[in-house]
Amino acid sequence: MTAEAELLLMNASRAQLVREVIRPALSRGEIIVCDRFYDSTTAYQGYGRRLDLQNVRGIVDIAVGNTRPDLTLFLKVSPAVSEERLRSRQATMPFIRDRIEEADRAFFERVAKGYNAIAQAEPTRVKIINATGSVEEVQSAIWRVVAPLAATGGRQT
Amino acid sequence: MTAEAELLLMNASRAQLVREVIRPALSRGEIIVCDRFYDSTTAYQGYGRRLDLQNVRGIVDIAVGNTRPDLTLFLKVSPAVSEERLRSRQATMPFIRDRIEEADRAFFERVAKGYNAIAQAEPTRVKIINATGSVEEVQSAIWRVVAPLAATGGRQT
Repeated sequence: MTAEAELLLMNASRAQLVREVIRPALSRGEIIVCDRFYDSTTAYQGYGRRLDLQNVRGIVDIAVGNTRPDLTLFLKVSPAVSEERLRSRQATMPFIRDRIEEADRAFFERVAKGYNAIAQAEPTRVKIINATGSVEEVQSAIWRVVAPLAATGGRQT
Repeated sequence: MTAEAELLLMNASRAQLVREVIRPALSRGEIIVCDRFYDSTTAYQGYGRRLDLQNVRGIVDIAVGNTRPDLTLFLKVSPAVSEERLRSRQATMPFIRDRIEEADRAFFERVAKGYNAIAQAEPTRVKIINATGSVEEVQSAIWRVVAPLAATGGRQT
């Protein structure tokens, strides 16, 4: 599959998800937590697949419209820790890698660089969480960032 | 399906077609004839589904890159003739209508308006063919437009 087709398919799925699931839930007053959303396309298809960043952002904007995240948590670990976690997950619960997970190390280095650039460009929205520690430690770090927002109903103030 | 997801899916398919089929054929020196391509998204998803025209064109540009048609033939008939032809085709060779073909008459009027606007904006590339007559008449009208181009290997001069 070409990088352009991958970009457009990912965002077709996202466009449908936003209108069918996320917006109705938001209008019921619910808080939405997504695992990969707004910034992932910029990181994976823009930085990772090396597609033009402005084109990529234009497509994401069409897919999400004005439904943008109020807060993004960037769970950051070193490549070595990431690979070790993937290996131990594979050992205890084997899974088939998808086309993204099968990409080479240079791809993931570009993706990581992309997430870092996004976090630097929007420090208010994107919070970097050190994810090297235990589940409990990461959970605490996340809660320190989320708690103030939860108090305001999800909107940054 | 939402209009945005339809737009992105159509263009994911087109992005793949351009890179997997059309560009290799062009580089072998072949002439490509497509039934609906570059302008159809503007007409159907832009004018028909009423998505922002600039957004629609941006997505088409990403899907096709610099692989744009040298010549577009707009086969024009009145809505009455179009409906009559659809009815007779349905009678002799029944087919299941897809989600576009099932849209209402107002949708097709907007699409036709879109094609007219495109033809007016780019009269050199887009040629209007009166498609009301017999197959032979339409064929002759098409050939009159195509013959000069075929002599130059497909490129407008």
